[in-house]
Amino acid sequence: MNKMIPDEITRDDLTAMILRAKKRAGLSWAEIAGKIGMSPVWTHSAATGMNAFPEDKARAFAQLLGLPESAVALLAESPLKLWGQTVPTDPCVYRLYEIVGVYGPTIKALINEEFGNGIMSAIDFSMAIEREPDPKGDRVRITMSGKYLEYANW
Amino acid sequence: MNKMIPDEITRDDLTAMILRAKKRAGLSWAEIAGKIGMSPVWTHSAATGMNAFPEDKARAFAQLLGLPESAVALLAESPLKLWGQTVPTDPCVYRLYEIVGVYGPTIKALINEEFGNGIMSAIDFSMAIEREPDPKGDRVRITMSGKYLEYANW
Amino acid sequence: MNKMIPDEITRDDLTAMILRAKKRAGLSWAEIAGKIGMSPVWTHSAATGMNAFPEDKARAFAQLLGLPESAVALLAESPLKLWGQTVPTDPCVYRLYEIVGVYGPTIKALINEEFGNGIMSAIDFSMAIEREPDPKGDRVRITMSGKYLEYANW
Amino acid sequence: MNKMIPDEITRDDLTAMILRAKKRAGLSWAEIAGKIGMSPVWTHSAATGMNAFPEDKARAFAQLLGLPESAVALLAESPLKLWGQTVPTDPCVYRLYEIVGVYGPTIKALINEEFGNGIMSAIDFSMAIEREPDPKGDRVRITMSGKYLEYANW
Amino acid sequence: MNKMIPDEITRDDLTAMILRAKKRAGLSWAEIAGKIGMSPVWTHSAATGMNAFPEDKARAFAQLLGLPESAVALLAESPLKLWGQTVPTDPCVYRLYEIVGVYGPTIKALINEEFGNGIMSAIDFSMAIEREPDPKGDRVRITMSGKYLEYANW
Amino acid sequence: MNKMIPDEITRDDLTAMILRAKKRAGLSWAEIAGKIGMSPVWTHSAATGMNAFPEDKARAFAQLLGLPESAVALLAESPLKLWGQTVPTDPCVYRLYEIVGVYGPTIKALINEEFGNGIMSAIDFSMAIEREPDPKGDRVRITMSGKYLEYANW
Amino acid sequence: MNKMIPDEITRDDLTAMILRAKKRAGLSWAEIAGKIGMSPVWTHSAATGMNAFPEDKARAFAQLLGLPESAVALLAESPLKLWGQTVPTDPCVYRLYEIVGVYGPTIKALINEEFGNGIMSAIDFSMAIEREPDPKGDRVRITMSGKYLEYANW
Amino acid sequence: MNKMIPDEITRDDLTAMILRAKKRAGLSWAEIAGKIGMSPVWTHSAATGMNAFPEDKARAFAQLLGLPESAVALLAESPLKLWGQTVPTDPCVYRLYEIVGVYGPTIKALINEEFGNGIMSAIDFSMAIEREPDPKGDRVRITMSGKYLEYANW
Amino acid sequence: MNKMIPDEITRDDLTAMILRAKKRAGLSWAEIAGKIGMSPVWTHSAATGMNAFPEDKARAFAQLLGLPESAVALLAESPLKLWGQTVPTDPCVYRLYEIVGVYGPTIKALINEEFGNGIMSAIDFSMAIEREPDPKGDRVRITMSGKYLEYANW
Amino acid sequence: MNKMIPDEITRDDLTAMILRAKKRAGLSWAEIAGKIGMSPVWTHSAATGMNAFPEDKARAFAQLLGLPESAVALLAESPLKLWGQTVPTDPCVYRLYEIVGVYGPTIKALINEEFGNGIMSAIDFSMAIEREPDPKGDRVRITMSGKYLEYANW
Repeated sequence: MNKMIPDEITRDDLTAMILRAKKRAGLSWAEIAGKIGMSPVWTHSAATGMNAFPEDKARAFAQLLGLPESAVALLAESPLKLWGQTVPTDPCVYRLYEIVGVYGPTIKALINEEFGNGIMSAIDFSMAIEREPDPKGDRVRITMSGKYLEYANW
Repeated sequence: MNKMIPDEITRDDLTAMILRAKKRAGLSWAEIAGKIGMSPVWTHSAATGMNAFPEDKARAFAQLLGLPESAVALLAESPLKLWGQTVPTDPCVYRLYEIVGVYGPTIKALINEEFGNGIMSAIDFSMAIEREPDPKGDRVRITMSGKYLEYANW
Repeated sequence: MNKMIPDEITRDDLTAMILRAKKRAGLSWAEIAGKIGMSPVWTHSAATGMNAFPEDKARAFAQLLGLPESAVALLAESPLKLWGQTVPTDPCVYRLYEIVGVYGPTIKALINEEFGNGIMSAIDFSMAIEREPDPKGDRVRITMSGKYLEYANW
Repeated sequence: MNKMIPDEITRDDLTAMILRAKKRAGLSWAEIAGKIGMSPVWTHSAATGMNAFPEDKARAFAQLLGLPESAVALLAESPLKLWGQTVPTDPCVYRLYEIVGVYGPTIKALINEEFGNGIMSAIDFSMAIEREPDPKGDRVRITMSGKYLEYANW
Repeated sequence: MNKMIPDEITRDDLTAMILRAKKRAGLSWAEIAGKIGMSPVWTHSAATGMNAFPEDKARAFAQLLGLPESAVALLAESPLKLWGQTVPTDPCVYRLYEIVGVYGPTIKALINEEFGNGIMSAIDFSMAIEREPDPKGDRVRITMSGKYLEYANW
Repeated sequence: MNKMIPDEITRDDLTAMILRAKKRAGLSWAEIAGKIGMSPVWTHSAATGMNAFPEDKARAFAQLLGLPESAVALLAESPLKLWGQTVPTDPCVYRLYEIVGVYGPTIKALINEEFGNGIMSAIDFSMAIEREPDPKGDRVRITMSGKYLEYANW
Repeated sequence: MNKMIPDEITRDDLTAMILRAKKRAGLSWAEIAGKIGMSPVWTHSAATGMNAFPEDKARAFAQLLGLPESAVALLAESPLKLWGQTVPTDPCVYRLYEIVGVYGPTIKALINEEFGNGIMSAIDFSMAIEREPDPKGDRVRITMSGKYLEYANW
Repeated sequence: MNKMIPDEITRDDLTAMILRAKKRAGLSWAEIAGKIGMSPVWTHSAATGMNAFPEDKARAFAQLLGLPESAVALLAESPLKLWGQTVPTDPCVYRLYEIVGVYGPTIKALINEEFGNGIMSAIDFSMAIEREPDPKGDRVRITMSGKYLEYANW
Repeated sequence: MNKMIPDEITRDDLTAMILRAKKRAGLSWAEIAGKIGMSPVWTHSAATGMNAFPEDKARAFAQLLGLPESAVALLAESPLKLWGQTVPTDPCVYRLYEIVGVYGPTIKALINEEFGNGIMSAIDFSMAIEREPDPKGDRVRITMSGKYLEYANW
Repeated sequence: MNKMIPDEITRDDLTAMILRAKKRAGLSWAEIAGKIGMSPVWTHSAATGMNAFPEDKARAFAQLLGLPESAVALLAESPLKLWGQTVPTDPCVYRLYEIVGVYGPTIKALINEEFGNGIMSAIDFSMAIEREPDPKGDRVRITMSGKYLEYANW
């Protein structure tokens, strides 16, 4: 990057700026999400460049964290979703990959049995992460909801 | 394999035998699960060699589908969980992989925020797959519940 | 596979059987497709195990080619779509992979510009392959049509 | 890069400069394409370094967006087409990869049946992306046209 | 493969059969090529399933080596060109891969300089392999000739 | 790199410097090659760091393009030949990789038949790229000549 | 990173800073561990960003090595555990990978035999590295202790 | 494999035979190990082809399980240690891989600190797996002991 | 493989046959090598299909081990040298791979320094493996000798 | 790297500094090795960060080339041995990789035959590279000597 491109912030710069601003503000993701009226999952993933905020939410988010005006457009822009690790190494993320490996064919079989020849959408999709109190140790509950999409045939 | 090993069935043979017996019996996974008193997810994954049935369930399952006696031990045995595709190609399974790629870091961040320095277990874990009726098109709901495990430090 | 599973045909056997029956019948994919009332693209891909025929089409297809009764269920079953070559080597297929590599980001940018934050479905999807006469040499025309899916946000 | 190479812009710098200039100009790819008399697909892919503009179009494009004189040669230069993700992760691009995986052998079989022993060119090739209005939800239509190339034999 | 497919030969069987018949006949590839009026390169690659013989050549080849009638159609069929080693291990083949790695960008630059924005076709293509006598040790000469294909722009 | 290494140019810097100087000089690779008395293939590959110039040629090349004195040693140094793409993505380079995939075993078989148990050297090797005029469209001719190397046995 | 993010230290900067401070202080990992009351294994892995210190230990560690205040939060933060080499190349680390390859199935079989259908946790886990004096040459002893986790079934 | 090799058992056949014989005998690995005077770890890994039994132990093992005479030589033969999964998928084995990824550099640093410039041998190496009773849930203890090997320098 | 190819032995069959015959004959590789007048390294590698015997040696080898006549041609045939593990897992072979990783650039630098711009041939090459008695434990000595090949330039 | 880490040199900086100092001093690796009393192989590999100098040699090496005081500790530090190319592309290094692929199983078999169930150490290991004069062209001789390590069994 040279000085012909002086005053631009990249998506990665913005993510770093957001994480810093969040620390300074002393807010959790759940609190930020509550203040802008979106879920914590979407708020985190749009804040870190894996989804796009609706424009009004981008503005609210930028105001809440004191981001520059130019951040708003970037936050509302459809991002190129890239990840570099085919198999994730972080233990917390790997466990999810393992669940896909172990239960993937089962999920497919049960969707086929219940719905027919189709899949669960990852686009018309939402997810929540909650604490499930349990006397033997609290549990993490992840709920995914995706539209059933039937294969067209022609 | 030569004739010194004549009367053995392998886990793969058993899976093929089960799928055939299920077709002949005209039962769905949900029905089989109901009859042996386990969930459809566990039933399918244990039947296809990705989990082990408790011994009484292995016996009930084998009786229901008319499997030979030797199948019971195999169904109750802790299987080596192998999958060959680092990135799954089947569209229904790939969507789950994509969800891990897009939302993995978000799930990690929210678990850290809510619980602390730990992960969701994939061992002390259960999952359900349900139909979510929706006027704009029914949805697939996947609910995962895994014990929160805190990193020991020492 | 041992003699405990004597009279089963696998999906791969069925595909081989279909290709043989097609040769014997002296029919092209376009002709077969015309006779069962489906497109050539779907007919070929369902016949070779990458899609599922609707049940009546599976029956018509099996009758046309003289396949055994057990083939009907197999043809109508939602297949596990597997491919082993991450980068396809066949030159005809590779050119398509190359088009995705070269034009993928362009397609994404233009869909975003025209439709918003979403993608083209590969499930609610159809495709046609046609000859485009051209004095400088005929051309292959591939037309894809997929439903636009907007990202849900929540 | 050190100060012995002071006033050079790289292709990546140019792409960043173009995206910024486009934002400032408030033009869509379709509008830019219309003004320089090329298709949106080519315009985007040549602007982002996956194709080369004919020289007059490079000049028109540079003038429209106020790019420096040195950009013209760069825009007209045959680029090294590189992509780093063997399997693309962005969901919008992945769906295209999936289509190649699922329908690649079908496309090959139907080209062979209709044309003979050959392939569709990805060089003497063009593509259009259009909106297909549909009461059940608009669709994305992608039309590819590539010259049929017969294998020489000798 | 089960007994429902009794009298079929696969392409791999055919290749093995051809190599055996060639040994029995005591003919070199160059001699076989001369007798059927094709080049040794094409003859070997079509015989081993990487290209398709024109039908009359397929017939001549089959007669020369005493192959069964069913081989003719197989030899004339457009094959799926598959190779499993992304980087070839055989030293003789690896040297060619190395030449592509070392000189690939050079070949591209010189084609661009001499011809313009395009490539050498690998479809409208031929190749010869010859002995180049040399007092310091004979040399292998490989001559490739591929049609120059200019990128269409639109 | 820190200021303890102030006045050093790396091989990558040198390549960039050469490409810039070549543009300023308005010379083609063929012209540069002619002026220093080497082939265009070697000139390009040594200029871009995939081969080493003989010292006198390095000096002539540096003088012709006005490179600093320190470039001479770098141009004459045996480079570490590195490439990062196991399968090249650029279409012009990929076609060469495809030729190795399709014809590699054929080239090996014909070398074995003509010469014996050995290979074509990629070290005692030269290559030329020429235009082959053709009424149906000019062709690219690539001629490779490598010493035949017989396997020692001991 | 641009000047909008001036006074931030990244985790990688912190690791470099720690290694430098450790050298200056002339302390071994064992000594540092002893002073802050944690094990050498945890101390090293948390210091280098593969684990998180409890907050009081982070503070003690930062004070001991004279790290800036901002380091404390970073040291106590749950890190994203990333490694880039699927197969580690360093000989000391590779030997551990080899042990997993050779003895992995054995460890699984013996855990299954002794405990049942479950695994050893890598989260509720600790490890020690000690010298084992031996007249034939001292030995490295690595002791791992992980909670046995039984598969839930449901 | 054809009938010219009639009465041979391969290492894989032998492993299958051993697992069957062990089931019939109703013995655990620990019991078998006790009877032949070796550790359970070595016994399992040598029985499954990842290590070689000393000849007397091979004989004792074969007698105990009623294996044919030809098994003795095979059990005492230095096996080619092959594994196909670069990253193991089985959860129990993966956790060990994860431990190498997370703690590998730590183990290296502490060995260097304690011993010098060297590694822990994986050849002059032994391992034990034990139950560690714990009121909060029993633990798996893995103890590895490998000779410290100092790098020679010369 | 079907019954149309009844009496053929493949290279893999031949290798298995050789290993069996060698066991029956009770000969070491060194003894076999001595009897046919070749080195143990070449004898083993040609016997196991990684090199070709000169024809008289193939005959002598076949007679010594009582192989069928058809083995002679196979043993003298230039084999396709294939290996499937990019990184070898067997510890004995891996150590050699590690040596290439650690010392590869050093070997290149010292060859360049001593000889010039060239490499060591792996074709005009021989190797010996010997015992090096040493009071601190005997050593394995591997001596490689390959012709120096200078890069041609042109 | 930011200004909080001002006066640190990294291992990569040091390697670049060494290569520059060596050029200025006009010394070959063999000459440097001679002056500090180590072999050329070790000298090069320790100088470029693949091995550690004994401390006195590190000091002698630093003095000879005029390196700063801080280099001594770095040169004597046990380095993390990393390489990024699983299969090396440089032709000189690749030939060594090829030798491991072709002769690896042979080396294993002959070590097993001569020594027993063990391997050649790559740690207690040394290597020399010499010129072998030969009237047909000089040869490169590489001699490796590694301690034989017997597998412990327990």
